Amino acid sequence: MAAAVVWRRGAAWLRSCRANRELPGVPRARGCAGSREVVPTCERYAVRRLPFARLADGDVAFFERLMPGRVITGEEEVKPFNVDWLKSVRGCSQLVLKPQTTAEVSQILRYCHERNLAVSPQGGNTGLVGGSVPVFDEIILSTALMNQIISFDKVSGILVCQAGCVLERLSEYLEEQGFIMPLDLGAKGSCHIGGNVATNAGGLRLLRYGSLRGTVLGLQVVLADGSALDCLTSLRKDNTGYDLKQLFIGSEGTLGVITAVSILCPQRPKAVNVAFLGCQSFAKVLETFTTCRAMLGEILSAYEFMDEKCMELVETHLKLSSPVADSPFYVLIETSGSNSTHDEEKLHNFLERAMASGLVTDGTVATDEKKIKVLWSLRERITEALTHEGYVYKYDISLPVGKLYDLVTDMRVRLGQSAKNVVGYGHLGDGNLHLNITAESYSHSLLEAIEPFVYEWTARCSGSISAEHGLGFKKRHFIHYSKPHEAVLLMQQFKAMLDPKGILNPYKTLPSAPDRSTC
Amino acid sequence: MAAAVVWRRGAAWLRSCRANRELPGVPRARGCAGSREVVPTCERYAVRRLPFARLADGDVAFFERLMPGRVITGEEEVKPFNVDWLKSVRGCSQLVLKPQTTAEVSQILRYCHERNLAVSPQGGNTGLVGGSVPVFDEIILSTALMNQIISFDKVSGILVCQAGCVLERLSEYLEEQGFIMPLDLGAKGSCHIGGNVATNAGGLRLLRYGSLRGTVLGLQVVLADGSALDCLTSLRKDNTGYDLKQLFIGSEGTLGVITAVSILCPQRPKAVNVAFLGCQSFAKVLETFTTCRAMLGEILSAYEFMDEKCMELVETHLKLSSPVADSPFYVLIETSGSNSTHDEEKLHNFLERAMASGLVTDGTVATDEKKIKVLWSLRERITEALTHEGYVYKYDISLPVGKLYDLVTDMRVRLGQSAKNVVGYGHLGDGNLHLNITAESYSHSLLEAIEPFVYEWTARCSGSISAEHGLGFKKRHFIHYSKPHEAVLLMQQFKAMLDPKGILNPYKTLPSAPDRSTC
Repeated sequence: MAAAVVWRRGAAWLRSCRANRELPGVPRARGCAGSREVVPTCERYAVRRLPFARLADGDVAFFERLMPGRVITGEEEVKPFNVDWLKSVRGCSQLVLKPQTTAEVSQILRYCHERNLAVSPQGGNTGLVGGSVPVFDEIILSTALMNQIISFDKVSGILVCQAGCVLERLSEYLEEQGFIMPLDLGAKGSCHIGGNVATNAGGLRLLRYGSLRGTVLGLQVVLADGSALDCLTSLRKDNTGYDLKQLFIGSEGTLGVITAVSILCPQRPKAVNVAFLGCQSFAKVLETFTTCRAMLGEILSAYEFMDEKCMELVETHLKLSSPVADSPFYVLIETSGSNSTHDEEKLHNFLERAMASGLVTDGTVATDEKKIKVLWSLRERITEALTHEGYVYKYDISLPVGKLYDLVTDMRVRLGQSAKNVVGYGHLGDGNLHLNITAESYSHSLLEAIEPFVYEWTARCSGSISAEHGLGFKKRHFIHYSKPHEAVLLMQQFKAMLDPKGILNPYKTLPSAPDRSTC
Repeated sequence: MAAAVVWRRGAAWLRSCRANRELPGVPRARGCAGSREVVPTCERYAVRRLPFARLADGDVAFFERLMPGRVITGEEEVKPFNVDWLKSVRGCSQLVLKPQTTAEVSQILRYCHERNLAVSPQGGNTGLVGGSVPVFDEIILSTALMNQIISFDKVSGILVCQAGCVLERLSEYLEEQGFIMPLDLGAKGSCHIGGNVATNAGGLRLLRYGSLRGTVLGLQVVLADGSALDCLTSLRKDNTGYDLKQLFIGSEGTLGVITAVSILCPQRPKAVNVAFLGCQSFAKVLETFTTCRAMLGEILSAYEFMDEKCMELVETHLKLSSPVADSPFYVLIETSGSNSTHDEEKLHNFLERAMASGLVTDGTVATDEKKIKVLWSLRERITEALTHEGYVYKYDISLPVGKLYDLVTDMRVRLGQSAKNVVGYGHLGDGNLHLNITAESYSHSLLEAIEPFVYEWTARCSGSISAEHGLGFKKRHFIHYSKPHEAVLLMQQFKAMLDPKGILNPYKTLPSAPDRSTC
């Protein structure tokens, strides 16, 4: 099989990959969306500030003594830390701290706990639910300077590093050693591994390598009162007591600040292939999935889908072009394996079957790294393309895979002309839909047409209202659609136990307890 | 490649597998070891009973009304529930309850919580650290009658079932549907899935399918006060709040009683091969591992090792015979994949390399199910063979893989003639050693020669004193060798929060808080 192959229904022939010639490379980091001024979160959402202490000159002086040159107070310098990447939420913090060690994080939190100062931990600030920026004047604790790799063991494949390491830097480092990170996502050029763990990031490789709950082996965490919890073990198996680190994975910085991570990394596959296919219906997308899962088996490493609207947006806004003929749906299938001949034979057999049975009407295959990146960019850059539309209402839903696209169709009917676009794409292999609705600008009435409809629809199917993005600021009040009352109460008990003053990332993840809010 | 192949160094030729002719089948369930009377745990270990209420006639009457015919009080009928499979610990419970539903478990715990009666949850009672039987007169809550499969979805591969389903029954059910359980272990014929989850069981497939922390998607749990926590979702991804279920995975019944499980099951591999090989040194066992991991890649599903002493014991006590020539070490390699031709070619290439480079001196390969079971029985039945030796001191250690066997060698030197046998085997691919020391009968002086030496040795290598067995009753006081003081304190806070009266599986997992013990 050659490096780039295009298959058409009823016949398969070699052709150079159009995508290869015409599409730009994948950006190393996400750019910032738009340039308009962002409405402060507390205004747009009418949030009331909790009774934390306010920053005083003495506080800043303390931090400057603790970490000279790594305390940011200038309004302009602090500004980018106050706004999320989507430019949808904005805080008004006056202080960013950039510790370099766990000990410094400990001293910062001990001080803030004592002084009752609220803290918003921040990694690469690539979150999509407003979890990584302050809502009011919380001190921003940035992990940007905690970017050291501590160790990597080539026998076990276990990497130990500080929380602020950028995912893509870690990937590059590991690839040189013959390994890869067990997770990959569009924001890899900016996101920090600590933030990935804190939000239990899913991404593009979950189908193959599982979630961070399995691959993260150890964590170092600083609790709200400044005490450090050292569970940074490098063991594949350890059943000595309760697995405390799990509580911090996905807790979005509300229970502790992750300062270092130990993670199990798979071997770098010797062969990677990507097929980009066109399907005439969502039913065919599903049948293609079950067919390829059976035929590709252990080498299947991603099964992504996007609808024709997504393709229109990446074509319009990013000048990418589709390598296959216009189709209502597109599928990206990746294989990763240890033997290129075997893998290509499996993929070839699957594609023959998919074409012969009419599941797929057009497609292209890439086997070299550059062409693979070009195909992946069509899927990975949808988020970026969407930001060019204006305001984006983002939903990240887990559903039984058969019902995945019905939500998009129903939403389109419901919103009619009031939305600019309603698009669906995502990690079909994991049952994870990214439903995005765009409009020229934020509108409360459009939001009310979407919510709680989208959550009620999801709850009726026993789905999750946040598959991988977390609840952050924007979704926290909707947790009841996916979790029973008893579970939420228990979470609040954990929060109260680990952070009795509530200083860690307040207004995030859990619904506010009414008796604690204030003017 | 034929169904059974024997390779010898420098030449490879076909031969029927000796193991196939001479070895008996794998037992469906573990038998009971020995028949001697077991010393009560509280006497052997000088434990003091905590001030729980004692069972009264009124209590038994209550339970008989609640679940008529499923309340066991006769001394002889209760006896097997009081003793562990190893016959190493014994409680003196007078009551076994066999609920059928989560609601019944709820009612039982609500009553016990109110009355301050201690409860020992029990699955298949196959644990190896004394975690599944009472220490004193705790009421035994058996999941034996909670054995219904609730649902299985063939598209997603997600199984939902009650906690008392026997692992092997689930495996058989799934195989008919073209799927397998993501875990497999020697006790499969008796152990319950609820117990597997409560102890975070590892087993033989962890290398390939990861731990239960990744594959368990949802749990239904009853807390100490009888309240039910329904987190029985069937979603691959769900980031709505803290992942509460993780706290119950591996908590050994001390934080709640698991009543139902939702678990992600892999597709049944179309091809399975097992190679059983002889190596002349542990260094060669390690090099064989790195070689096969690189060459077998994604189809490697198990890499187990055992020393020559283990082989002697299965030959002596179980009349099994080795299919390969006498070697200091034996390795069992399993591959599972979707294409038998590809898999056999990969395995063939690996074996050629391993033989040619002198890593392996003798070996046999099996590709059909019956012969594969015969080879697996050599490894799986070591635990059973050991029980025929007399008393067994069992250690389940995680170590950096390069140091794995040094502990066995050092222990042999240390104990000299005072031990009958010191053997090492285990899941090398996971860095997990099962170190077993046998003697005619229990001896406190031998125990003192082993402990804390074994734990100190492990701690020096930053290993874990319990890789997969848990801490149960026997190891709980050694938790500090693998967890820092702050972590243990936090675990005790979780226990106090979730089970303030401490009625759930007391004397297990966590070290006793001195101020709560009593005469």
